[in-house]
Amino acid sequence: MSDSDIIATPPHEPGHPQEDRVHDEEDRLRPEFVREVLDAVADGDDETARALVSELHPADIADLIELAPGDERADLIEALAGIVDADVYAELNEHVREDMIDEMEPQQVADLAAQLDTDDAVALIEDLEEDEQRAVLRAMEPDDRAAVEEALTYPEETAGRLMQRDLIAVPEHWKVGQVIDYLRSSDELATDFWEVFVVSPDHHPVGTCKLSTILRSSRAIRVSEIMSRKQTLIPVDMDQEEVALRFQKYALISAAVVDPSGRLVGMITVDDIVHIIQEEAGEDVLLLSGAGDGDINEPIAMTVRTRLTWLIINLGTAILASSVVGFFQGEISRFALLAVLMPIVSGMGGNAGTQTLAVAVRALATNQLTSSNTMRMFGRELTIALSNGLSLGILIGTGVGLIFSNPLLGVVMGSAMVINNLIAGLAGILVPVMLDRAQIDPAVSSAVFVTTATDCMGFFSFLGLAALTGLTG
Amino acid sequence: MSDSDIIATPPHEPGHPQEDRVHDEEDRLRPEFVREVLDAVADGDDETARALVSELHPADIADLIELAPGDERADLIEALAGIVDADVYAELNEHVREDMIDEMEPQQVADLAAQLDTDDAVALIEDLEEDEQRAVLRAMEPDDRAAVEEALTYPEETAGRLMQRDLIAVPEHWKVGQVIDYLRSSDELATDFWEVFVVSPDHHPVGTCKLSTILRSSRAIRVSEIMSRKQTLIPVDMDQEEVALRFQKYALISAAVVDPSGRLVGMITVDDIVHIIQEEAGEDVLLLSGAGDGDINEPIAMTVRTRLTWLIINLGTAILASSVVGFFQGEISRFALLAVLMPIVSGMGGNAGTQTLAVAVRALATNQLTSSNTMRMFGRELTIALSNGLSLGILIGTGVGLIFSNPLLGVVMGSAMVINNLIAGLAGILVPVMLDRAQIDPAVSSAVFVTTATDCMGFFSFLGLAALTGLTG
Repeated sequence: MSDSDIIATPPHEPGHPQEDRVHDEEDRLRPEFVREVLDAVADGDDETARALVSELHPADIADLIELAPGDERADLIEALAGIVDADVYAELNEHVREDMIDEMEPQQVADLAAQLDTDDAVALIEDLEEDEQRAVLRAMEPDDRAAVEEALTYPEETAGRLMQRDLIAVPEHWKVGQVIDYLRSSDELATDFWEVFVVSPDHHPVGTCKLSTILRSSRAIRVSEIMSRKQTLIPVDMDQEEVALRFQKYALISAAVVDPSGRLVGMITVDDIVHIIQEEAGEDVLLLSGAGDGDINEPIAMTVRTRLTWLIINLGTAILASSVVGFFQGEISRFALLAVLMPIVSGMGGNAGTQTLAVAVRALATNQLTSSNTMRMFGRELTIALSNGLSLGILIGTGVGLIFSNPLLGVVMGSAMVINNLIAGLAGILVPVMLDRAQIDPAVSSAVFVTTATDCMGFFSFLGLAALTGLTG
Repeated sequence: MSDSDIIATPPHEPGHPQEDRVHDEEDRLRPEFVREVLDAVADGDDETARALVSELHPADIADLIELAPGDERADLIEALAGIVDADVYAELNEHVREDMIDEMEPQQVADLAAQLDTDDAVALIEDLEEDEQRAVLRAMEPDDRAAVEEALTYPEETAGRLMQRDLIAVPEHWKVGQVIDYLRSSDELATDFWEVFVVSPDHHPVGTCKLSTILRSSRAIRVSEIMSRKQTLIPVDMDQEEVALRFQKYALISAAVVDPSGRLVGMITVDDIVHIIQEEAGEDVLLLSGAGDGDINEPIAMTVRTRLTWLIINLGTAILASSVVGFFQGEISRFALLAVLMPIVSGMGGNAGTQTLAVAVRALATNQLTSSNTMRMFGRELTIALSNGLSLGILIGTGVGLIFSNPLLGVVMGSAMVINNLIAGLAGILVPVMLDRAQIDPAVSSAVFVTTATDCMGFFSFLGLAALTGLTG
């Protein structure tokens, strides 16, 4: 990333974006601005379009392309030729980027990749078809190609794909002055780094030195005297979610990546991690709801398929729950009010179960819920379930008993409510913990099990108690 | 933060944590380790406990305290006196920290705060009762006190609370050599910074200079020649969620905070932002489920209250939906199978609605869904709803028709399924977009409206069509 990557804010303008005609107060592109650019393109007035866009940050240009309707994108990109550069591609949503890259010649893609850091170049071509990928790699310079090919040998979503090879590593015995002279010596060196890695003669990391520490030390001091010997080393095959958690836990700005023999092979910087932190934390709500990765730029057929799969699984569990009701058709015919009230019991159980589930899934994802406190968490959730179950049971039981002048119905309703809240609390914690132990992401499939439990038990407890107490005569 | 904040990984040990007896493979403290420390404390063997813990990162010590059962925490902290330092308090969960601070004298709290950056010191005391807060502030040194008091004048969760006052600002006309000499001149200067801010004589930021750029430039070059004039300025009253989005969008490492007159008043660094990014992205699933902030360390009474509030609101909507069923008691008495099947229609609508809702809430939170593409998003979601509704409708309609040898019942069931899927898709996008326009966080209250819509319309479409078609005779 170059310095041009920093957003334009007019000097002496304290970033009060409400006075900005490009961005709204939440830093989103204004719809009038987007329309203005697109209208200029539609009128063939490329010059106006280019003038409007030229000062924007690559992230904003990427947003502009994503906000443009699919059928206006090609013209927009053509009009902005040269402005839509490699940095813009690096910022684009992967589906939108894929569509654009599919239209390009391998040489064009190779040229784009050459301008990017290895991690961004890899992201650009990792989703291409195998033969296209080969064609692009063939069109690249040998050095870049080797770096990208090496990165591609690591599994997707691991540290090896995220890391940059451009880093500064110096030997322990160097003095601060030598480090500074070395950094000034060549234009070929990395430009974006926040720490210098100190390595042993066989290139194992032995410490790190923040740039601020180097700047504040006199030239005669040895690096080994000012470096921090404690550091977080990232194994090259570590999953990106783990990498993100380490960065967050230890407040890292950059970290050394090592191969299995412990040699320094790359560096990950926090700016490449923030979007992973956001994605991984935000995906739980999407996964729990069965919306897949919930990308609004995903081809619609893919979205339909993902969601339908989960809906059909849910249909299976809904049928299961309704078959519970099926056992009680006789009771319902005699006393149709049961059918009116039963969805309240099942639905409220579902709500309570989802609360517990959401808490458990987040606590597992953030490493707050571990085997050390699982039992305590069970106790906590069951206490909450009992407490809320009793409150709701008494509330609805009293209400139903009074409204329908049928105390027994109120008792049945209230009791079913308590039972189903306990089931909800139990399932809401048990299901995600068990899936997590089995190394299955609890966000992906917990909801199905929990709602099946609360639906079935909601119907069963209410209708069963009704039958048992002779409520239906 | 000092250098000791970097986790211990033995040199030449490439961070393969499976060989680590303290951490498991996901970097969580092993339950055996936690137990070992707690047992030592329980046995009065503080020395062993201290030896076990002494090499841990403050974030791990904080985890250890959180993982300890509530009734063992006080003894643990006493045993680890001196090891549990200000940095550990800064890392602790706020509820656990609050419990611990409640036990302390104001002078002790003031001493802790004095060792922290302003932002961490503020976090330490911002939740205290007003009179305790005043007592702590009185016990602080005038300088620290002034900085904390100033930060407290800004609303919670704004840039003013997050920023540090310690930063490096230099005038434009300085040369690189002067900057380096200045940094070497005093031990009083900030130690943790990644960029130097360049300011005008009246202290308005005019540019930034990455430390790597300074290090790589010769001493004779003017700062104004190498600085980046484009920068993201953060207004001191900006909400922390907005701050986090800017850091993410523009890949910032640090940013200048300016007051309403445009003067540089502080700096925010990315390490203080990563946990906000994670929290803000992860809270959607908790808010949508009605679990509040879902903190497992929150006092249980507070959790019960938050969740019960949402459950009672849901109870209201469940009663509303069940009253729809109430209109059709006659039909249900005559044909109890309707009661068996109706939860499938309402439940499946709920599932589909939740999928759309989750996608819309995330797209709004990440600024991907803006007024520029709202209409397209509506079209997209309704297309998906129609497609999935038809698939599910045909599937369940055919199945029901065949199983119960009642083609009309199959048609009614299938049609209700299509209708309710459309309602689900429409509500799933309309509700969050409308709440967002009304400046209400769509994650907080969307789910109630959407499930009310799918429940009511699920029952109404199915039972209504059944009545209309004369299915019940």
